Amino acid sequence: MELLEEHRCFEGWQQRWRHDSSVLNCAMTFSIFLPPPRTNPPPVLYWLSGLTCNDENFTTKACAQRIAAELGIVLVMPDTSPRGEHVPNSESYDLGQGAGFYLNATQQPWAGHFRMYDYICDELPALIADNFSISEKASIFGHSMGGHGALSIALKNPGRFCSVSAFAPIVNPTRVPWGQKAFTAYLGADESQWRAWDSCCLLMDADSANALPTLIDQGDADQFLADQLQPAQFAEVARQKNWPLTLRVQPGYDHSYYFIATFVEDHLRFHAEHLLK
Amino acid sequence: MELLEEHRCFEGWQQRWRHDSSVLNCAMTFSIFLPPPRTNPPPVLYWLSGLTCNDENFTTKACAQRIAAELGIVLVMPDTSPRGEHVPNSESYDLGQGAGFYLNATQQPWAGHFRMYDYICDELPALIADNFSISEKASIFGHSMGGHGALSIALKNPGRFCSVSAFAPIVNPTRVPWGQKAFTAYLGADESQWRAWDSCCLLMDADSANALPTLIDQGDADQFLADQLQPAQFAEVARQKNWPLTLRVQPGYDHSYYFIATFVEDHLRFHAEHLLK
Repeated sequence: MELLEEHRCFEGWQQRWRHDSSVLNCAMTFSIFLPPPRTNPPPVLYWLSGLTCNDENFTTKACAQRIAAELGIVLVMPDTSPRGEHVPNSESYDLGQGAGFYLNATQQPWAGHFRMYDYICDELPALIADNFSISEKASIFGHSMGGHGALSIALKNPGRFCSVSAFAPIVNPTRVPWGQKAFTAYLGADESQWRAWDSCCLLMDADSANALPTLIDQGDADQFLADQLQPAQFAEVARQKNWPLTLRVQPGYDHSYYFIATFVEDHLRFHAEHLLK
Repeated sequence: MELLEEHRCFEGWQQRWRHDSSVLNCAMTFSIFLPPPRTNPPPVLYWLSGLTCNDENFTTKACAQRIAAELGIVLVMPDTSPRGEHVPNSESYDLGQGAGFYLNATQQPWAGHFRMYDYICDELPALIADNFSISEKASIFGHSMGGHGALSIALKNPGRFCSVSAFAPIVNPTRVPWGQKAFTAYLGADESQWRAWDSCCLLMDADSANALPTLIDQGDADQFLADQLQPAQFAEVARQKNWPLTLRVQPGYDHSYYFIATFVEDHLRFHAEHLLK
């Protein structure tokens, strides 16, 4: 691992690292916030970003370090896809680099690199555990495509996370244009292969014994709400399953980081309740 | 004025506007944060950014809106220079567009456009007063080149501001490379013309009857501290003049927005003490 940047921030440290990913077959960059040291090793909260983002959007714009420092939580911000000249790409902002959708691609030309699910679930946590002093507790959250990532990864790994939350997540990718485009490219035309990566389907199939505290914030002035996000679909399944979901609709808020910055404190305190108890 | 962007943020509004500046002879963009409405019109706190920045750096990275919303303060973030294809520029990051140094240039090719002092002191406040509901109280703060701008503008306009503060300001531009390069280009080789734009010189000549509450934060791991910033020079003059300066040295902090984000709450609360009393 190579340290690219380090900044003092709220008495902790904001760092940016590069490492060679064997899962993704490319060099990857991630950001991490380390809170001021305490007696006990801190838990980790993973943040998954949305389309076109990298590890720096949340790091620079969300204002989460203040609260993470106060609570004693490590924040890990990975990139949203494999990167590099030798990594396949498309001219669309919503496919290829910057748009990994946190799944394992089975179709060419993507299959050799686009395995963000394995990267987030296995390679990155092992790297973090090997290189930083952390506890075994972890939670996960994200925005838009990263909200899809956080929810689907949490649902696919019962017991792995203490809590999950999302801002304006894509909850039902098999039914919306962003998801259908990406899943067709990465997973192929056989829609039966898509269910395993769709949070609504995963929640429908989930064992309520594994119920996980879940928080979703959605702005009602979000330009993608009706066509791409539809959190009410997820809320309806949660209601049927008696799943512990809090869905909050925030009047006047859009899809931007101003929305995230406004409510990120609530999300960190929500995760802290479950990570630190 | 043309509204370019508007986002709900901490129950207030983050907006970005474009207008034609007659002082700078070009179109200018500024950002403004409007806190949630209260009974009384809110005061204004002007932020002046540093080299290479525009109106969006502080807006997106400093996390100041949360506190401005709580306190009921309007934040105004102007650009750092005139802009446009017809505006003179240089290939250096520290001269020309993005590097206006908050002065009125007298030398060609700059003199026709580079009048950021008049823009910040006259044209912009008049525009804000005409278009937004604000009180008559104002304060000013900034970072690096913008810290120089905030201090020098406050010192040149006694009684105009309730308080002034700065992060890692250039306090003595006549004596450091950034200032000497810019002042030579904008003001000419006659160094006697430079004093009127140097905060240390202005403070030396100030009437202590006009003493203004002043706060400076400086990181001791700032890569520009020794060569370009030297806040101790300003502190020494303040000591001689019995000027109400608090200079805080923050161990381990650098020149980045992570430093600003960490301490911006202290600055807003400092200004609120003087703006809201």
